[in-house]
Amino acid sequence: MIIDCHGHYTTEPPQLKAYRERQKQEVEKDPLHQAETVDLKITDDELRESVEGAQLKFQRERGTDRTIFSPRASGMGHHIGNASTSLTWTIQSNNLIYRLTQLYPNNFIGVCQLPQSRGTDLQASISELERCVEQLGFVGCNLNPDTSGGSFDLPPLGDRYWYPFYEKMCELRVPAMIHVSAACNPAFHSTGSYYLSADTTAFMQMLTSDLFSDFPDLKFIIPHGGGAVPFHWGRFRGLADMLKRPPLDELLLDNVFFDTCVYHQKGIDLLVDVMPIKNILFASEMVGAVRGIDPETGHYFDDTKRYILGNRKLSEADRMQIFEGNARRVYPRLAEALGN
Amino acid sequence: MIIDCHGHYTTEPPQLKAYRERQKQEVEKDPLHQAETVDLKITDDELRESVEGAQLKFQRERGTDRTIFSPRASGMGHHIGNASTSLTWTIQSNNLIYRLTQLYPNNFIGVCQLPQSRGTDLQASISELERCVEQLGFVGCNLNPDTSGGSFDLPPLGDRYWYPFYEKMCELRVPAMIHVSAACNPAFHSTGSYYLSADTTAFMQMLTSDLFSDFPDLKFIIPHGGGAVPFHWGRFRGLADMLKRPPLDELLLDNVFFDTCVYHQKGIDLLVDVMPIKNILFASEMVGAVRGIDPETGHYFDDTKRYILGNRKLSEADRMQIFEGNARRVYPRLAEALGN
Repeated sequence: MIIDCHGHYTTEPPQLKAYRERQKQEVEKDPLHQAETVDLKITDDELRESVEGAQLKFQRERGTDRTIFSPRASGMGHHIGNASTSLTWTIQSNNLIYRLTQLYPNNFIGVCQLPQSRGTDLQASISELERCVEQLGFVGCNLNPDTSGGSFDLPPLGDRYWYPFYEKMCELRVPAMIHVSAACNPAFHSTGSYYLSADTTAFMQMLTSDLFSDFPDLKFIIPHGGGAVPFHWGRFRGLADMLKRPPLDELLLDNVFFDTCVYHQKGIDLLVDVMPIKNILFASEMVGAVRGIDPETGHYFDDTKRYILGNRKLSEADRMQIFEGNARRVYPRLAEALGN
Repeated sequence: MIIDCHGHYTTEPPQLKAYRERQKQEVEKDPLHQAETVDLKITDDELRESVEGAQLKFQRERGTDRTIFSPRASGMGHHIGNASTSLTWTIQSNNLIYRLTQLYPNNFIGVCQLPQSRGTDLQASISELERCVEQLGFVGCNLNPDTSGGSFDLPPLGDRYWYPFYEKMCELRVPAMIHVSAACNPAFHSTGSYYLSADTTAFMQMLTSDLFSDFPDLKFIIPHGGGAVPFHWGRFRGLADMLKRPPLDELLLDNVFFDTCVYHQKGIDLLVDVMPIKNILFASEMVGAVRGIDPETGHYFDDTKRYILGNRKLSEADRMQIFEGNARRVYPRLAEALGN
């Protein structure tokens, strides 16, 4: 079985986008506007249509089995509006994911967006995580380490600010993918520099904290191959040494995992060569940041399965770990849902 | 000849640090304080002592010939104080580099810090660049794309804000290394995440701009191996394609160069495998971010010459380009100073 641990619903029906636009207008007029969850009147057929020619088509063509599926990352927009805006938008977005998992139980497994919002604590996120895991059968969440959209003004991930949320994650036995949303800072291009910067930054926040002593069962997936981390693994090992931290494998490699959203063979070759195989989870992020065909190969840039198969050093057992085994370990509720 | 294009004066005499501390106190008391350039009374012997056991020792031990040398990057602190603070601090710092290049003309070649300051234009930087190049014989500068120390609130590098400075760079025939200073944002660790994020972000700003159509002779070095860029080269090629930009080699590989401050063999192997050899400049950033010995190899993490020599694909001609030839092309004034 091939599990793609990083897919977003980037082909949403227009009703969802229209709802979000109305939200933005309302909250622009009145910053205190209390947003509501309304019935978007999206039919099952409309949902089917939105994924049949996209995510499902690529699953079939590329031969992947399950996608761990969450709302569009760039759409989370935690910097927009107030707490009620974020909460209602999040509920709508997660509910659509739930409906897709019900329509396609053999294709999609849910991971939730969180109703984070600038200047608030994580209580609403805790409640929504509980709802999504316990009622909707979701197996994880996307946690945004920079709800400002590019000013990086939240406390680092080792700060006590985050601890109530981590407690809930551990209690529910779900991991978080660290994922920022779209940048609203003109210095950043969302998918070109902001995501990769946030990935790298999150890793360094973990390296400099005692997070995993306090939460030995906490698990994070850093997407996009870990940003700059594998390429600079020597730098990070050397910094851990200079900062008198334990070696990285002791400090965080039971807790931190990297996905394979790296869109060329040589990048994947480095990732699997540098990182322990147990820390690598297959992912493509299709239909996502990079949708074209690589003229150098004639294949989609984000068809990352090809790079895993194209690597010459991985054994069959290694590939099985990357494609399936590691995801089952990192997402225990996924393993339970799939059975043996 | 082996030219190390990225060295900072990280072993400054205590008088320099004390001067800076006084500056900070003065400007804390009075934000409008007009700082002064004073005589720090640092003797030539003190300067010699500060580098003999550090940069010069490593040059000898590792067998490198010249270091392109600039003030400590994390010390630039463009977010501190006002324009006069930044200007006087920059002049002091650059003057010490000049004195070192006079004491050790066969070891150090100067590159200047700039008196950038939040909320100001680049006129003072233009003047200081002129002074350093024309009077002090410097061959380049370090340009800070985020003077906030981690809020990324400057216009992107393709913005007209920067154009007067680029004009002066072209007129003087000097390149800039893109280099932020220390982060004052607790989300970032300066050398662990901030530098790498800024490197990646700068590259994406260049990718999305028409900078090099407007300035075909402008040259930038992105340090630390280009941040996340080579590891994600497929992503950047794919994004250029999606954004309808020209292929990256046409768009920017005549203008953008990457140094070899990547502190493990596999990282360097990726860099030289992915990037054209003509775009790679040897550098170690010693004595810098990572000063320890790698227990896996028994050698200093930042002894990057070993990784270049350890790579199995580079030809002798490739290595000569990386060690010397490319630096002569990117820093034409260096080539003139060195002769043939």
